[in-house]
This record gives sequence, C-alpha cells and structure tokens, in this order.
Amino acid sequence: MEKKINKLAIVGGTHGNEFIGIYLVKKFEKFPDLISRTNFETQTLLANPQAFELVRRYIDTDLNRCFKLQDLENQTKTNYEETRAKFINQMLGPKGNPEFDFVLDLHSTTANMGLTLILVNNHLFNLKMASYLSSVEPDVKVYGSLNPGSENSFVNSICKLGFAIEVGPIAQATLKADLFEKTERLVQTILDFIKNFNEGKLHQINGELTIYKHLKVVDYPRSEDGEIAAMIHPKLQGGDYQQLNQGDPMFLTFDGQTINYDEENSVWPIFINEAAYYEKGIAMCLTKKECITV
Amino acid sequence: MEKKINKLAIVGGTHGNEFIGIYLVKKFEKFPDLISRTNFETQTLLANPQAFELVRRYIDTDLNRCFKLQDLENQTKTNYEETRAKFINQMLGPKGNPEFDFVLDLHSTTANMGLTLILVNNHLFNLKMASYLSSVEPDVKVYGSLNPGSENSFVNSICKLGFAIEVGPIAQATLKADLFEKTERLVQTILDFIKNFNEGKLHQINGELTIYKHLKVVDYPRSEDGEIAAMIHPKLQGGDYQQLNQGDPMFLTFDGQTINYDEENSVWPIFINEAAYYEKGIAMCLTKKECITV
Repeated sequence: MEKKINKLAIVGGTHGNEFIGIYLVKKFEKFPDLISRTNFETQTLLANPQAFELVRRYIDTDLNRCFKLQDLENQTKTNYEETRAKFINQMLGPKGNPEFDFVLDLHSTTANMGLTLILVNNHLFNLKMASYLSSVEPDVKVYGSLNPGSENSFVNSICKLGFAIEVGPIAQATLKADLFEKTERLVQTILDFIKNFNEGKLHQINGELTIYKHLKVVDYPRSEDGEIAAMIHPKLQGGDYQQLNQGDPMFLTFDGQTINYDEENSVWPIFINEAAYYEKGIAMCLTKKECITV
Repeated sequence: MEKKINKLAIVGGTHGNEFIGIYLVKKFEKFPDLISRTNFETQTLLANPQAFELVRRYIDTDLNRCFKLQDLENQTKTNYEETRAKFINQMLGPKGNPEFDFVLDLHSTTANMGLTLILVNNHLFNLKMASYLSSVEPDVKVYGSLNPGSENSFVNSICKLGFAIEVGPIAQATLKADLFEKTERLVQTILDFIKNFNEGKLHQINGELTIYKHLKVVDYPRSEDGEIAAMIHPKLQGGDYQQLNQGDPMFLTFDGQTINYDEENSVWPIFINEAAYYEKGIAMCLTKKECITV
C-alpha cells in the first residue's frame, strides 16, 4: 500500500451501447481539467469505437471477456474485439506488469444496480476505496465478482488496482441525465481519493464494507427447445440487492405461473433482467451479503 | 362502418429487439385459443425473424419504414427488410386492397408511453375503438401520427383498420412481466370489441377521445461536428404526455446548462428518450392534445 499511483486510465465504451461511460469520456476529453490532479496522470480511452459507431454491445465478441493472458497471447485470435483487446493491453498493460496503476472502466446496465463497483480481486487498496466510496455515496454498492482459481477476463484484470462501475437502471443506447451526473460525481470522488492517497493522507483509513460476493448465475426457465419460458417476476423486477428468501417469487411463466426461489439459504440477486445477459443465459446473479472491516 | 371484420393479423417483432410483442406472438402461437373468436379469423406474424435472431431493431433498414407503395413496387429494393416488407404485403395486403381487414402491430419503447395506440389515419372505426379502449384502460393513450399529404410507411398502412400499440418504458431486448400482461389484456379487449362489433352490438357507440396529434419532432442539441451535446433534462425524463410550457426545462448539456422550451404554445412531448430514435435525430415528438367526440 506504500506505492503511489502514477497513471490512471478512465475507460468508456467497452460496450458500444452503454452511453453514460462513452459520453463521460467524451466530456473529459473536451474538458481535461475536470480529471487532472496534481500528483498523478489520467488518460481516457474509448475502448470499442466500432461497436459505438454501430450502437451495439460488440462487433464480433464481448470485449470485456477478451483479457485472459492466453487469449491476449494467442496469435490466431484476430477478430475485432480480440485485436482491440491486444491494443488496449499494449496501451494500458501489459497485464501482470502494467504501465498504468489503476483502471476505472465505466459500464451501464438495464438492472437496478445503482452505482455498483465490481471488484475482480481482493486487493486491500480496492477494498479500502470501496469502503470509503460507499460511506460517502449511498447509491454505491460493492459486488465481489471473484472466481477463485479462474483468471478474470475483464479489462480491469490488466491492473491490480481499479474496478468497473456499473450504473443502472438505464436502457441500452440511451443517456439519463441523473445517472450521468451521479457517475461523474463518483469519478471525481475517486480521483480526489487517489490524490489524497498519494499525499499520504489515507494510509490509516479503516472502515466497514458491505460486499455482495458472487455465488452463481441463474438462467431463465426454458422450454425443451431452449426458448425462454418465463420472465422476471414483477415482485423481483428492480429488486437488485434485496434479500431473496425461500418461497419468494422469482419468475412468472408466460402462462401466468409463479416460480419461487426454492433454496434454503437466503441470497441477494443482482443484474436482474440485464438485457445483454439474455444471450449469456443469465437472468440474474445470486450473491451473499457480507460485512467486513478493511 | 357496416362491413364486418373477417381477418385480423397480430404482428410482433417488426423490430427485432422489442421483446414484448415477439413473446406475445409466440405465446399466441402456442395457445391459439387465446386469440380465437367465433366470428372472425386471427393470424399471427413474427415480422422480422432475422433481426430478432440477432437481437437488433433491424438488419439493413427499419422494416417499419418500408411500406410505401412505391417502395413495395420497386424491384431494385431487395435488402432484407425491403424483401420482407414485400412478403408481408403479399401475406396481409396488398396495400390498398388487403386480404386482412385489421392489423395490430405490437411495439415497445424506452419512453414512458404507457399503452399508446398509434393511429395512422382518421378512420371512424379506429377512433371509436381508441375511445372505447382509453375509457376502459387508464394506461391507454392515443397518438395521432398523421402527416396529411404524405403516405404512411408503417406496417399498419397496409389496412385502413388497426394501429400499432407502443408499450413502455422498457429497455430494448428485455421483457417486463407487468407490461407484458397489460399488453396481453389490451389485445384481448381489442379482440372482444371486434367480436361485438361483428355481432352488431357496437354500431351506436359514441364517446369522448383524447388524442395527441403530431406536431413535429425535436432533435438533441448538437455540437458543430454533429455530436449530441445534451441529454433529456431530468425534469422532462419520463414526462411523456405531460404539458410542456414556455420556460420549462427540456435538455441538460453535458456541462450542466439547462435548455428550456422557448415557444409560446404549450405542447405534449412523447417518445422522450426513445433509444432507437437517437440515430433518426429525434429526442422527442411534440404533440397537441385535443378532445373530440367520435
């Protein structure tokens, strides 16, 4: 925790139809003073410009699943996003020994996720920052997307420090002024936090942190031919980060049957009804809520 | 108004990422009894299956702008949607002398449009049905999308009778159970209305109708290079069908300046922040509210 942060990257448009991050990056490029701080350098990156041009999540494959080392090193992986991932890894990385110390990747979601920080590792600096941010901004939630033993494939995996911010609910390919402003304010708070850290002011920071740790994903109920057979239940729609207990409604089939959550342990679902996850077979992610001291 | 309705088409998926209509059509195809009535025939159509397959609004061009007579007759118009429009016109039409008497086209929108009926002509039967539907279902609004002197290019223009239903707010490429059920209930009410009409029970129906008549579209403020320079103002976001007066906030620029509505006449904006209209240069449609007796 002694080492200062010298270079920070703000990434937007890793998915081309997530406009808040894209237009924030454009704003920061137009008004660079907004993101400049005295004791470290900040650069912006529009990660998937072709997907933004066509207003799609991606052209050939999900860019935010292209950052495993073996894929970055694989010469046969040459589609648009695979090539783009290699370029980004060259610019910000290389993964494992990166030029940049901190990567902030700006996403948005159709789920009611507020301002979610997605942690892909347990680095103490990330935990401390997450604790601080959730103490000053009530909309901040912290999702631990940790799969022990398997390498992470997100842009964020280039650096140990940093995380994605997942803002919602917002429809793909739209802007929403209130969420835009909240995200911008959060970015400012993060930059100020790092400035203070570099000045040695935050070495002793301690705090509580509520973290929602990934358990598993749940798919939509499907018919024999693989087609979706139910929708998120109206009582669960928008209920991200709320406790789901055995017997609570989860899905509503097209012919009006309720399907309940039937496991004994309570869970906290998130990414409920995220548009981009239909194709991934994910109706929601189940997490467990933990309170820790960092 | 004497002629009975013999054949009705329920169309879903004219836009491939508008899931409510698509999954309603799939449900009706699985349970045809739901849409069968004794005195007329109902058929379903998934209008743009390739766009649904790729979860996009369209493949080559917006299918719901392909139904002008000169385009349907133009042999050089052969891209996917142009070809598909000719097929649909052959199946339901031909436009002007159609096989089907009534077309119901199911759409959804990211704007807060409730259950909007989009009328493309002033046929008395459509007006009477709109009056009835808005009297029994408070979420129903009626939008008169009439451009006198210019031919309509929607699927609905094949027949004189019928309209599109535009349901929202809902993110593209998602389902929402409450809106799904409301839309299904409205379809049922429409089918029952037609059954009663065919039995001669509704010849004398009279009623009030509040209709929002199209005035013009408004684009986002743009910078010199054509880029969007502002978002829908938070006070207008979701305010579809609410009166907008001179001096009311309309847009918020990325650097925080409010742009007000500056015309003298009050208007009622709709389609506020519809995702698919960013590329069309439409931030919202302005209408005037009229109350008529039909």
